[in-house]
Amino acid sequence: MQGSRTLLKYASPLRRKISMRWASAVGQHPIRGNIPIHGHGIALEQYAEVDRAFSEEEVRAFGMLVNDMNPLHRSWSIRDDLPSEIQDHDMLHWDETSRRSKVLVHGMLASTLFTSIFGTLIPGAVYLSQHLDFRKPVFANELVTGRVVIDRIRQMKRKGLIVTCSTRIVSGDEVCIRGDANVWILNGTLEKETYATFDATAK
Amino acid sequence: MQGSRTLLKYASPLRRKISMRWASAVGQHPIRGNIPIHGHGIALEQYAEVDRAFSEEEVRAFGMLVNDMNPLHRSWSIRDDLPSEIQDHDMLHWDETSRRSKVLVHGMLASTLFTSIFGTLIPGAVYLSQHLDFRKPVFANELVTGRVVIDRIRQMKRKGLIVTCSTRIVSGDEVCIRGDANVWILNGTLEKETYATFDATAK
Repeated sequence: MQGSRTLLKYASPLRRKISMRWASAVGQHPIRGNIPIHGHGIALEQYAEVDRAFSEEEVRAFGMLVNDMNPLHRSWSIRDDLPSEIQDHDMLHWDETSRRSKVLVHGMLASTLFTSIFGTLIPGAVYLSQHLDFRKPVFANELVTGRVVIDRIRQMKRKGLIVTCSTRIVSGDEVCIRGDANVWILNGTLEKETYATFDATAK
Repeated sequence: MQGSRTLLKYASPLRRKISMRWASAVGQHPIRGNIPIHGHGIALEQYAEVDRAFSEEEVRAFGMLVNDMNPLHRSWSIRDDLPSEIQDHDMLHWDETSRRSKVLVHGMLASTLFTSIFGTLIPGAVYLSQHLDFRKPVFANELVTGRVVIDRIRQMKRKGLIVTCSTRIVSGDEVCIRGDANVWILNGTLEKETYATFDATAK
């Protein structure tokens, strides 16, 4: 099993010098970082990040599309309208000045920042797995940053690379969502400096 | 840490008798199963499932909303239009008769079936974590079933229940997406037959 691929867990100081920055437009959301477009020249510690605020309209559109009727994703103008089950819900932040509750962005909607990064930078990348820990609420109109960092690279004998990335949604200093993802980059190649791989079969 | 909650891992034969079935409409997508609405009477092995086919228009709307430009989620009418990186992509199923590729449903879109089940049955349920393994492609217009089964229940001293569910998206006999989720049901209560809990501090 392990013999069919070369494992790479290696951090080159050369890589820290890399300062190439690109801005690939994802709609109006530019991506920052140094993960190479199309995955040609992948290396450990490369990252990519994108900022976005989800509007109440976008949260509503997502809820309609996916049939998620959870009232946490709605704004209520009169507290008494709320179902009794959730009137004092921890995740429901009530604004006494506006007499409205804050709209919670669906965790699955916020987490799409990860796939939008991969799908834009590396067209054809195949998403193999994603773990998501929803730690803090993300509210509508709140600017958050989605960030992926390459933690591990496996070179596949058959084709391409599988990268394991840490994935984070951050608001200010707070981590709202954290986890990791495995992404298969079929036409991905390693950065030249990282050819110092080791073969797992040799161990 | 453990002392603050009571762990429950207990399967009652009585529960197998439960045959109450409800059909709560999620838009036009009825939910089947026996997880109780509002989480009043939660027990192990309860399940809920929903069928859905995602249309090409819904996949496109999702892609626009989340800025996922991955060409796998588009249908191409002429093969030469495809970027060279993905012309022979394993996930891109080419239909020679129609000269179009099949549209792959975003894994994150298909996975929203889980949240739509919880959000509809148990308004105010808080999604704590989700693991997703994307094993087989889900194509547009393909009828799939999203299914959650309660595998574990933790009773919180502070408030409510945390349930661990296995989560699956199934197409025919094939599991397309599998994983598990932790969901916090703040006003959830246990089914009467399952009060035989044990206190983790007593061990």
